[in-house]
Amino acid sequence: MSFNTTATIASFGGKLLKLTHKASSTNCDMALNLYLPPQASKPGSKVPVLFYLSGLTCTGDNCAEKGFFQHSASQKGIAIVYPDTSPRGLKIEGEDDAYDFGSGAGFYVNATKEPWTKGYNMYTYITEELPKALFSSFDELDSERVSITGHSMGGHGALTLFLKNPGLYKSVSAFAPIANPTNCPWGQKAFKGYFGEDQQGKWKEHDATELVKQWKGPLDILIDVGTGDNFYKQGQLLPENFMKAAKEAGNDKNINLRMQPDYDHSYFFISTFADDHVAHAAKYLLA
Amino acid sequence: MSFNTTATIASFGGKLLKLTHKASSTNCDMALNLYLPPQASKPGSKVPVLFYLSGLTCTGDNCAEKGFFQHSASQKGIAIVYPDTSPRGLKIEGEDDAYDFGSGAGFYVNATKEPWTKGYNMYTYITEELPKALFSSFDELDSERVSITGHSMGGHGALTLFLKNPGLYKSVSAFAPIANPTNCPWGQKAFKGYFGEDQQGKWKEHDATELVKQWKGPLDILIDVGTGDNFYKQGQLLPENFMKAAKEAGNDKNINLRMQPDYDHSYFFISTFADDHVAHAAKYLLA
Repeated sequence: MSFNTTATIASFGGKLLKLTHKASSTNCDMALNLYLPPQASKPGSKVPVLFYLSGLTCTGDNCAEKGFFQHSASQKGIAIVYPDTSPRGLKIEGEDDAYDFGSGAGFYVNATKEPWTKGYNMYTYITEELPKALFSSFDELDSERVSITGHSMGGHGALTLFLKNPGLYKSVSAFAPIANPTNCPWGQKAFKGYFGEDQQGKWKEHDATELVKQWKGPLDILIDVGTGDNFYKQGQLLPENFMKAAKEAGNDKNINLRMQPDYDHSYFFISTFADDHVAHAAKYLLA
Repeated sequence: MSFNTTATIASFGGKLLKLTHKASSTNCDMALNLYLPPQASKPGSKVPVLFYLSGLTCTGDNCAEKGFFQHSASQKGIAIVYPDTSPRGLKIEGEDDAYDFGSGAGFYVNATKEPWTKGYNMYTYITEELPKALFSSFDELDSERVSITGHSMGGHGALTLFLKNPGLYKSVSAFAPIANPTNCPWGQKAFKGYFGEDQQGKWKEHDATELVKQWKGPLDILIDVGTGDNFYKQGQLLPENFMKAAKEAGNDKNINLRMQPDYDHSYFFISTFADDHVAHAAKYLLA
């Protein structure tokens, strides 16, 4: 359960830790980045935690370098966890063949189809194994105050993990999420690969647009999508489907979908609105 | 003189333009990034300009992605220019052999030694050709309000270009600058390669520690160096030599050398203090 710290990097008054650990759910060593804000170094203090789930092809490094969550997190006293996006090096045939399936594309689900069951269990890794390991190793992290956000595939991950686990996360937000994966090429390819053809079962269980229909209680979500995002234009994100489903279920009143003029799918987009998403999480984490 | 715009990317309310142009001083096509803050889009407005000179191995992309200058520049209404660090592809024998000489390592000088005279004229490119091209192509840039900053080799560039050209720049700051190149391995290798053995002439003309001795008038400089910076520890930066020379010349009163605890040489360091350096430039650009 313990972590190996491969680097400690000063950033915005706090520390970015580059960590690795042996994970049983994913059946391999996993790398991640953990940002500890300056407030975490006060003896006896506990800081809340924001998980940031990355998109296709990314590791935990991309957003730690380009996302600028540390800027606001350091001011508000929130730790940021940047996990990897899949198991690595499982030697499953074809795992490195495509950018949108296998390595770098775990989709935050537990695969039910061979051979991916061998370790493509990012759902269990993110919701159970990783937080348990972090909270047992880092006393300065408050296991009672956890929020989640993410980008693209990671926005899908943030929305679905939040909606499937009422109470586990204090808040959720998303950047350009794959909001209706059962109806877009990325999601269909991934779900077919990880779940097989069970479209009425597992597919729907991991589709935010399906899940929001069943949500009970208040639902305050911040979602940013760029109007210049080519993946949005190609119908990979479908935030309108998510909003429509939420509205039909009477859950849309506090879902703030902001269509940001001209922004694309890149970290230039994420970094621009990172402060807003940290502020959204802080409303709940620091309440 | 005109630029080819290969991409326009929304960032912090403004636009990051990826540009290329044919440069005669460097004898090749040069790439750069230009950040136009939102204030630049108001009809008839002119915004001041901050040049950011990058360090060894970098292009204009690294800091545009990881430096966080757009954050503060967008609020203050300052354009940022991120030039490349050398000519590219001149087919000079050995130009790609080392990370600290040739490609990616132009050192912001005009070479006087063959074969580097063929295009290693980054001094002329940065102080004359590039600004002239920018101001003739972008009406929204104010040629009367220009400041300069940079990192490592680019910090050397910022200090020397400022000190050699009184009045050309409104202000200067630097991140981990190579502050006394004639006394460190990086500088000695570069100056020997670009200038030959003329240590009393060209070498000293491009050494900030030598130049600061001759400065007349006020000198308000912000310099950040991380105490965890391995290149500082190895004696590549030597900011103390610069401070000592400035003090002996009576020029040190407003030079603010901040030794930042634990920070390294990376963009995590730069991004942490980018806001401060934009604020330093803004004192003069917006005065």
